[in-house]
Parts: sequence; C-alpha cells; structure tokens
Amino acid sequence: MKNILIIGCGLLGSSLLRRIKKKKLAKKIFIFEKSKKNLSKIKKLKLPGIIIQKPEDVMSEINMIIFCTPMSEYKKIILKLNKSLTKNHIITDVGSSKSNSLKIINKNLKKNISWVSSHPIAGSEVSGPEHGKQDLFEGKWCVLIKDKKTNFRHLKLVDTFWKKMGSKTVLMSPEKHDKIFSITSHLPHLIAYNLIKTAQTFEKKQKHNLIKFSAGGLRDFSRIAASNEVMWRDIFFDNKTNVSKAINLFIKNLNEFKKDINSKNNKLIIKKLIQTKKVRSQIIKLKQDINLPNFGRD
Amino acid sequence: MKNILIIGCGLLGSSLLRRIKKKKLAKKIFIFEKSKKNLSKIKKLKLPGIIIQKPEDVMSEINMIIFCTPMSEYKKIILKLNKSLTKNHIITDVGSSKSNSLKIINKNLKKNISWVSSHPIAGSEVSGPEHGKQDLFEGKWCVLIKDKKTNFRHLKLVDTFWKKMGSKTVLMSPEKHDKIFSITSHLPHLIAYNLIKTAQTFEKKQKHNLIKFSAGGLRDFSRIAASNEVMWRDIFFDNKTNVSKAINLFIKNLNEFKKDINSKNNKLIIKKLIQTKKVRSQIIKLKQDINLPNFGRD
Repeated sequence: MKNILIIGCGLLGSSLLRRIKKKKLAKKIFIFEKSKKNLSKIKKLKLPGIIIQKPEDVMSEINMIIFCTPMSEYKKIILKLNKSLTKNHIITDVGSSKSNSLKIINKNLKKNISWVSSHPIAGSEVSGPEHGKQDLFEGKWCVLIKDKKTNFRHLKLVDTFWKKMGSKTVLMSPEKHDKIFSITSHLPHLIAYNLIKTAQTFEKKQKHNLIKFSAGGLRDFSRIAASNEVMWRDIFFDNKTNVSKAINLFIKNLNEFKKDINSKNNKLIIKKLIQTKKVRSQIIKLKQDINLPNFGRD
Repeated sequence: MKNILIIGCGLLGSSLLRRIKKKKLAKKIFIFEKSKKNLSKIKKLKLPGIIIQKPEDVMSEINMIIFCTPMSEYKKIILKLNKSLTKNHIITDVGSSKSNSLKIINKNLKKNISWVSSHPIAGSEVSGPEHGKQDLFEGKWCVLIKDKKTNFRHLKLVDTFWKKMGSKTVLMSPEKHDKIFSITSHLPHLIAYNLIKTAQTFEKKQKHNLIKFSAGGLRDFSRIAASNEVMWRDIFFDNKTNVSKAINLFIKNLNEFKKDINSKNNKLIIKKLIQTKKVRSQIIKLKQDINLPNFGRD
C-alpha cells in the first residue's frame, strides 16, 4: 500500500489509523470524517493522518479506501467519489451486515470498480475516535466477502491488509455471513436492547427502582444495549429478513421455556440448562472470551 | 455471634466462611455439606471450619444458621433440624426468590422459630467452594426480607451480620423482592439461557459454526447461561408467576421491535436505542458495574 483513505474515523476507523501508523503500512493516511465532534477529538488526540474535506479531490493519490461509517452513509459517499474512482482502487468497508449493503453498493458504484467487503468482529459498546486502539483487531476474526463480482487480486490484498491489522481472516458469501451474524451478533444486540426496554417498561408501571439491583444479571445486557444507535439501526434494517427469522425462533423457544417452567417440568428444564452451559466452555476454549468468572470484573 | 453453622458450602457458603474467619466473627464455624465433591474440595483448600455429618447433633452449640443450599433442599434440612431448633437460633438463607420459599419454610419450620430471609446480590456463573472469596459481598446489596412474622431482634442481628460481610442492606417484603428480581435477575438469566438455546437450535438446523464468531455479542450471554442449573431451576419454579409475567412483557416488546424493524420505522427505532442507552450510564453511576468498555476484557 502507498496511500490509504479512511472514511469515517470513529472506533474502528481510528483503530485502523493507529495500527497503520504503527506498522508503517502507508506513506500517507487521509481521513474523511463528517462529524465535527469527531474531528475536534481527532485533532485533540493528535491522531496521525491528513484530514480532508473533499475526498474526491485526492482520489488520484489514493491506493486503498476503507469505509468505516455507518452503512446508511455509503450511498452518498459512493456517489461523491464515483467520478474519480478507477479500477485500481482497492475498496473495502467494515459493515456488520452484507447482502443488502452490497446491493446498495453495486447499484450505486460506477461500473467496473471493485469492492471487497469485510467485517472485523471487533466492536464495543463505546464509539468515537477516543476509544480506538491499535490492537483492536489483534487475534480477532475478520470475515471477507466473496461473491460472483469479486476481484481476486483485490481480495488477496484486502486479506493481507487485515492480517497486518492482527486479524485472522475467513471467507464467506454475503448470505452465509448474514445468517451467521444474525444469530451471533444481531439477535444478541436486539435481545439486550429489548431486555433493557422491558426493564424500563416495568419500572414505569411498578415505580420500583430496578437499576440499583442490576448486578444480578441486568447490568450485563446494559453494556450491549449502550451500543451506537445509528450503526445498530442500519444493521437491523439491512439484515431484517434474517433478524426477523431469528426473533421468531427465539420467541418459539421462549414460549416453550415458559411452558416448562409453569408446568414445573424438572427433567426438561435441567436438561436445557445443562446443555446451554456447554457453549460457555466452547467459547472459552476457542479463546472468544476471557477465562475468568464474571469477565474478571470483580 | 458465637458459633455459626453454614449449610451448603459452595460459592456463597464458602465466601461467608472465609469472611467470618477473616473478621473473626465466630468462635466456631460448622459446615454441613452433602456433596462429596464439595467436601473433598473444602478439605483440599484447607478452608476453616468443622465439617459435620449431623447438624442436628450440634444445634445446642449453634447461635446462627445460614442456609446456602439450593432452595429445593430447604424442606429436607428443616425437617431434620426442627427437633433441635429453639427460638434463640438466628436463622437466615441466601435464596434468590422469596415468596414461595418462605411459604415452604413457614409450612415446615417448627412453630415459634424465627427465620429472617436474606438475598445477597453477589452471584457468578461459577459455583463450588473453590470460587468463593472473602470479599464477594463487599459493596454489594443484600436484601433483607420483612413480613408479618419477622422477629425484629433477629432481623437487626442478621442486618449487622451482612454489614460485617461488607454488604449494604435494604429491607423489602417478599412480594416486592420477587417482582424486582424477576426483572433484574431472573428474566436476564432466562433470556440468556434462551438465546444460547436458540443459537444451538440454529446451529443444528443450518450446520454453521457459530461459536467461532461469538465475540460479536453471543459470548456475553454464554456467561450467564453457564450458571448453576439446580439453583436456577429452583428460582424459575419458585418465582414462576412473576417470571411468566416478565416473559410476556418481554415478548410483547420484542414483537413491537420486530414490527418496527420490518417497517423500517427509523424514528421509533432510534428513539428506542437511545433510551436504552441511558440505563448503562445509570448503572455505572450507581457503581453496579465496571466503568470500562467491554467490561475491561480486552
């Protein structure tokens, strides 16, 4: 890589920025960020990179473009860049949902321009450039998307890029990606939001102070339910078909659970609770979470 | 206190044991534990206390009795102790659900014996004496239960005891307790179990490897869903009326959420996601969780 343009410099964009700088992966890093709040943070933090107002003007200097904005911003930016894009530009994004966003990309992107979509599994409930860090992607999975339009030379370059970011990479179709992450990420977020919402509904009705006693379980969900609202609206809308199916499956299981509790079905409940326990040890074994009780919080 | 009997020496019982020893709160500590596995761990860990086989035989030496077993064990032990219990024994328990367990206690406990129920909000997904620690209750809430049968002298003594364990105490009726904790603790556990169950159903059907990609949200739920199955079966059964109501409220909210996603109701979704975000900052402000992104895991 010679020069890299980062579009959207929040948690992920600024983490890439820090890593690229640290590993000396680019001669120049350009930053295009529309939020004034983020821009003033970037300046205050003295993050490396050249802040630009008109990305279309520097396109001839750019080798790689990374979209790190919420997915609902893609279209507008693509239309702005189209004129100055060439087939040599390596373009990727970090969006959490793929099928629908790729439809929008393909519909709006100038013909014969290649886009290799990627999804690093490294988020947080916090957003903004002040939370970024150069090792955010270290040891984490990054899904690379392959479809019939994929330019394999570009795919290889994007793959190498993520490995330099510290990620392990894996290849998927947009459809497979969206199915898997509807269960491992989108449904958990939705459920966490909904649980907090339910606590709020209850609190309003019953006038009991709940938050005070949240250490018994509720607090865990509040972390995820504090995630960025624009990013998550985009994901829910983008992957709504899979998310709806996941909700239906969840409700079906929940109704069965309720029935077994109400009929005090000892055998079935114990079986269910023992089975779910196994997943934790698998997750720990695969190093997808910290191996300490209570996330090592206490 | 002079001599204390701990019945059930797992995570909570052994934490009490360690704290009582450290603070020199008892002359003698007796331990009654029926699990051979736990007994061998207690010996190996060289935990303080005298292991006894027949608690009924030492009752005349005992001043305070703390039930730390799953709630489904209470009845059997009460019937064993009844003969040797006197109105001077200070009795408490650490059960997570109150109305129904108090019914069972009152039905089986000998007349004129006092029982002051308590619930320390300090659990973990791990169980067993090897995970106990003397500061488990430090700064945590402990709910003390007051009803029309409460002996106020005993209540005061139990209150003092928990403060010496490091807890902040609060008084509630069994009914209020069970309503509040159906939302802050029982529903979150049930939802976590159900989410993991849903991931398992999906995995079976689709034959995709999900666990590998659990860092996007699912892993958080797997922690709670690894909690002790006997303890949680008891809680779900004991508090089934409130838990059922909580499930219904949760499903109602979830169906609304689904509807708003499917109709891409931007305004409502953003409003919902912003509102739920506030709970996290309240929880942090009340020091009910660690003030670090991602629970400080990474």
